[in-house]
Amino acid sequence: MARQESLNVSSSPARRRGGRKPTISREQILRAAEKFAPEELSIPALAGSLGVTHAGIYHYFSSRAELVAAIAAHASRQLEPPPPGPWEDWLVEVAFVLRGHFSQFASTADLAAIGTSVTFAPLVEALLRVMRDAGFTIRQAGDASELIASCALGGAVVLQRPNFDAAALVEDLQVAEDSPVHELAASAVDDDADAAFRRRLAVVVAGLKASLEAPTAS
Amino acid sequence: MARQESLNVSSSPARRRGGRKPTISREQILRAAEKFAPEELSIPALAGSLGVTHAGIYHYFSSRAELVAAIAAHASRQLEPPPPGPWEDWLVEVAFVLRGHFSQFASTADLAAIGTSVTFAPLVEALLRVMRDAGFTIRQAGDASELIASCALGGAVVLQRPNFDAAALVEDLQVAEDSPVHELAASAVDDDADAAFRRRLAVVVAGLKASLEAPTAS
Repeated sequence: MARQESLNVSSSPARRRGGRKPTISREQILRAAEKFAPEELSIPALAGSLGVTHAGIYHYFSSRAELVAAIAAHASRQLEPPPPGPWEDWLVEVAFVLRGHFSQFASTADLAAIGTSVTFAPLVEALLRVMRDAGFTIRQAGDASELIASCALGGAVVLQRPNFDAAALVEDLQVAEDSPVHELAASAVDDDADAAFRRRLAVVVAGLKASLEAPTAS
Repeated sequence: MARQESLNVSSSPARRRGGRKPTISREQILRAAEKFAPEELSIPALAGSLGVTHAGIYHYFSSRAELVAAIAAHASRQLEPPPPGPWEDWLVEVAFVLRGHFSQFASTADLAAIGTSVTFAPLVEALLRVMRDAGFTIRQAGDASELIASCALGGAVVLQRPNFDAAALVEDLQVAEDSPVHELAASAVDDDADAAFRRRLAVVVAGLKASLEAPTAS
């Protein structure tokens, strides 16, 4: 009971509504919500499945967006850190894990909600440890964490457009004939999403390596 | 004419008000939608302001999410490339422009919609040109574009939590005492969002520089 109270207070104090005490906990709602396909999740559907009023849900979550954000945050706490290895390779594996996490919610949650969903998840904690052990400062480690998460966000966007036809879009937009966009669209035809993701991560890793070797590292 | 016919089919005459055909173009809808505060934009509100039925809007946009994506894509075509300069500095300025663009829609559009909104916008075209001129291959230039956009996405997430209290969250999550998360939260107290964004971009730029100098650049 005490636990539920503190959960309520710490989760969304500003949104907490007055009125009767709900007969359901925040955890019970989250567990039920996780069973829905994201696109079928709605406050009325969830309330119906739990046999509570809409107000019972709104007591904890002010909107569907907030609910999806909480589900994503909860899911992020289950993300498994990859097995130990050299930090350069390990970071890349973390990026793939995070990309999978973001992809899961990319079309159902707004950017702000998804992006903050892994803040201080165990995976991020493991990343900070690995980077510290490799000799990075805590600020550099935090920056690395943000960069890897950013790449994962971008990678999730790419995965959302598996049948993206660059050539058709270029034609549609009537891009000038001498534009490098044509060349890029042509080179994208035989480009694999995973290979491209790995290439981009290699650039970030190279940049991190350079900052580790820089004498002014602070 | 064909277009109007299909409009009629997709709307329900019985539910339409005023008996006027919803003769409206996609552009007219977008122009009207852009005038709404994002959080106040809804299909019913938009249809009301235009004096058309919901079906008139749904003819062009299957959901509010799709409408917001189209607004974001349209807005991305107005983004001004920064004044010319060395590619290293210029890329950073582009990232700031993109971060502003993504921030504008971060809390109203899903990740997939926002992320794809700048595909082949003039700003991206300018970026490809600048990178090509600096000696990068088209694929490296495309990767640079994706990386800068990814950083901008991540940067927009950070801007969405201006009053984010890392220390309170750490306490709330009951993170172990020896966790580097405590140190990171402490170091974040006097960290400025723009300065952090610039630091992270510097890592990407350093990585790009390394790939430009690598003999195996292809």
